[in-house]
Amino acid sequence: MTDFEVMQRVFDLAAKGGHNVAPNPLVGCVITKNGKIIGEGWHKKYGGHHAEVNAIRDCQKKFGNNAAKKLLHKSTFFVNLEPCSIEKNTPPCTEKLIEFKAKKLVCSIKDPNPLINGRGIKKLKQAGIDVQLGLMKDEARKLNKIFIANHLYSRPFITIKVAQTLDSKIGLRGAGQVRITNNKSIKDVHKLRKEHDSIMIGSGTLNEDNPMLSTRFSLSKKISQPMKVIIGNNVNVKSKMGLFKDFSKVIFASTKEIVIPKDLTKNVINFKNAKQNIVENLFSYLLDLNCRSILVEGGNKLFNSFLSKGYYDELIIYTAPKIIGPEGIQGIDVDVDSFKSKMLTLDAIENFENDLKVTYRNKKPNGI
Amino acid sequence: MTDFEVMQRVFDLAAKGGHNVAPNPLVGCVITKNGKIIGEGWHKKYGGHHAEVNAIRDCQKKFGNNAAKKLLHKSTFFVNLEPCSIEKNTPPCTEKLIEFKAKKLVCSIKDPNPLINGRGIKKLKQAGIDVQLGLMKDEARKLNKIFIANHLYSRPFITIKVAQTLDSKIGLRGAGQVRITNNKSIKDVHKLRKEHDSIMIGSGTLNEDNPMLSTRFSLSKKISQPMKVIIGNNVNVKSKMGLFKDFSKVIFASTKEIVIPKDLTKNVINFKNAKQNIVENLFSYLLDLNCRSILVEGGNKLFNSFLSKGYYDELIIYTAPKIIGPEGIQGIDVDVDSFKSKMLTLDAIENFENDLKVTYRNKKPNGI
Repeated sequence: MTDFEVMQRVFDLAAKGGHNVAPNPLVGCVITKNGKIIGEGWHKKYGGHHAEVNAIRDCQKKFGNNAAKKLLHKSTFFVNLEPCSIEKNTPPCTEKLIEFKAKKLVCSIKDPNPLINGRGIKKLKQAGIDVQLGLMKDEARKLNKIFIANHLYSRPFITIKVAQTLDSKIGLRGAGQVRITNNKSIKDVHKLRKEHDSIMIGSGTLNEDNPMLSTRFSLSKKISQPMKVIIGNNVNVKSKMGLFKDFSKVIFASTKEIVIPKDLTKNVINFKNAKQNIVENLFSYLLDLNCRSILVEGGNKLFNSFLSKGYYDELIIYTAPKIIGPEGIQGIDVDVDSFKSKMLTLDAIENFENDLKVTYRNKKPNGI
Repeated sequence: MTDFEVMQRVFDLAAKGGHNVAPNPLVGCVITKNGKIIGEGWHKKYGGHHAEVNAIRDCQKKFGNNAAKKLLHKSTFFVNLEPCSIEKNTPPCTEKLIEFKAKKLVCSIKDPNPLINGRGIKKLKQAGIDVQLGLMKDEARKLNKIFIANHLYSRPFITIKVAQTLDSKIGLRGAGQVRITNNKSIKDVHKLRKEHDSIMIGSGTLNEDNPMLSTRFSLSKKISQPMKVIIGNNVNVKSKMGLFKDFSKVIFASTKEIVIPKDLTKNVINFKNAKQNIVENLFSYLLDLNCRSILVEGGNKLFNSFLSKGYYDELIIYTAPKIIGPEGIQGIDVDVDSFKSKMLTLDAIENFENDLKVTYRNKKPNGI
């Protein structure tokens, strides 16, 4: 097996962690000796053993403790993320590699967690273990993109969604909520909502559209609905609003107090923060609530402000093959100075019949 | 062989006509009898035999005249375009099918030529030949898209090309020619230029950019350059302009007289037309010059006017992953009234690294 094939297997194992490992990252581990796999493992659930430990256990189970000890001596560990060097719920994985006298570590990316970020690798090198960093790094970043954004930027992973016409218009002045994209695109947006822990809109959009902001992707009632976050002071909360239909948590982030009707107080919170950096404080607050990703849906003021400040990891643009003209409301419209020569990276192209869906990534995460 | 497989073969044959048949359409013909191919042919060059005649000749050559006569009796003809019913350079093909007593015609689309459009099919039906219309009609329209536009709309086939940013901007006010797309996209535009008989710009763009408008796709000097067409009165023609570097024909279309320097008069023409419908008259004039396709490159006034009036068959948008902001020059900007609820059809998506290329089609041609 080539290193690439082994690492591909690592990714397949890591993905098995699914939704059970958060807020931990998805990690897989394959141990090889003389080109053959001698142990495999992955991080199965938050609080459980790490991938490296599970792979060692797999080796011990297959070959018995004594034979495993010999096999692990001078073996090579493949992992998609740097092994941890700190003790939290489990002992640090780096010590296991040192204890079993591994010869080499092949690792896709460093751990973005500032407490680890390179320290694990340094420890291994100091113990004489050869470390090769970077194999399938783009895939590794993609697999744990939410975890990376959470640690690197101390905020939820942010996706900005824009539905526009060919002339970059998101609506028509004075016309209320205008339907831009087709049914299949809208279904895809519901899928996007399902993939995020929260949906964020500005108070202007709330007042104009009175949206439900629920994911109607599946008709099953068992589906857990994302949290809703409304930013802005211009809000008059009423119990009958579409927002409250699915009983998910709703957060009104404002600099002035917003009155919440008494029948709603169980699920509805006013995050009042009069400080200048309200958005950053809101991000910390959301992370504390285990809200690790946000889908920003509008209006244009909100997403342009986020684009301008770099508060995004992905920008997803749905384009319908229509032209609205000068009476339309401009979608993306960021001041050139704040966005000077900033380039995004094209990540994916899809189409839903005549509608186009393009996913752009913000610049690559630094430091990992 | 299925009908579909036979028709696929018809298309392969038709395509062999390449650039030699214009202004005639590309046509292939396969004759079958009891599910087996007994003759194949295609229109090879303008003025030469039509596809049906070449297929009959192929059958005669393979089997001898007598056996061919028997085989062609009750045979089925497959063609991508309705057989002609008029005598021009060659006798009408419909007569051949009647003469050889064909049983059936399978045909993708009607001939858009108003002199034929359905008349060929009518003649065959009157002679008792069964006609099946519509197999692979989309492919048939695509194959002869230029021919179809020429006959259906009495104008050259028109492609509008727009190179824009994520916020639909094509430049920056007061900044002259701004580079929007990357090298690979620009190379693709040169390929587009090569595929068109002419390139059209407005006089404003000429004055601002002094462009060469040549195709630099191939470094070979043998490449024939497209004609250049400049629309507008605000032109001060100078011999040293970039336009004249490759000695191709240049047409200045205007309502006022434009003075052409004497050293240029061989290749440079002022198409002066003071009438209201100058653009339509220009289209007729270009067709007379055997200019069957136009690539409209800008500026925004020109392409928005063409979009608004429906003077286009394809709209190709290159989008660079940049944001220019409110100081940028809006690209597509068509008045909503003139474009009311008009939808385009998404035809193709490509990317050149981070640049996106999307091709939209104007509504399907009617009448064929």
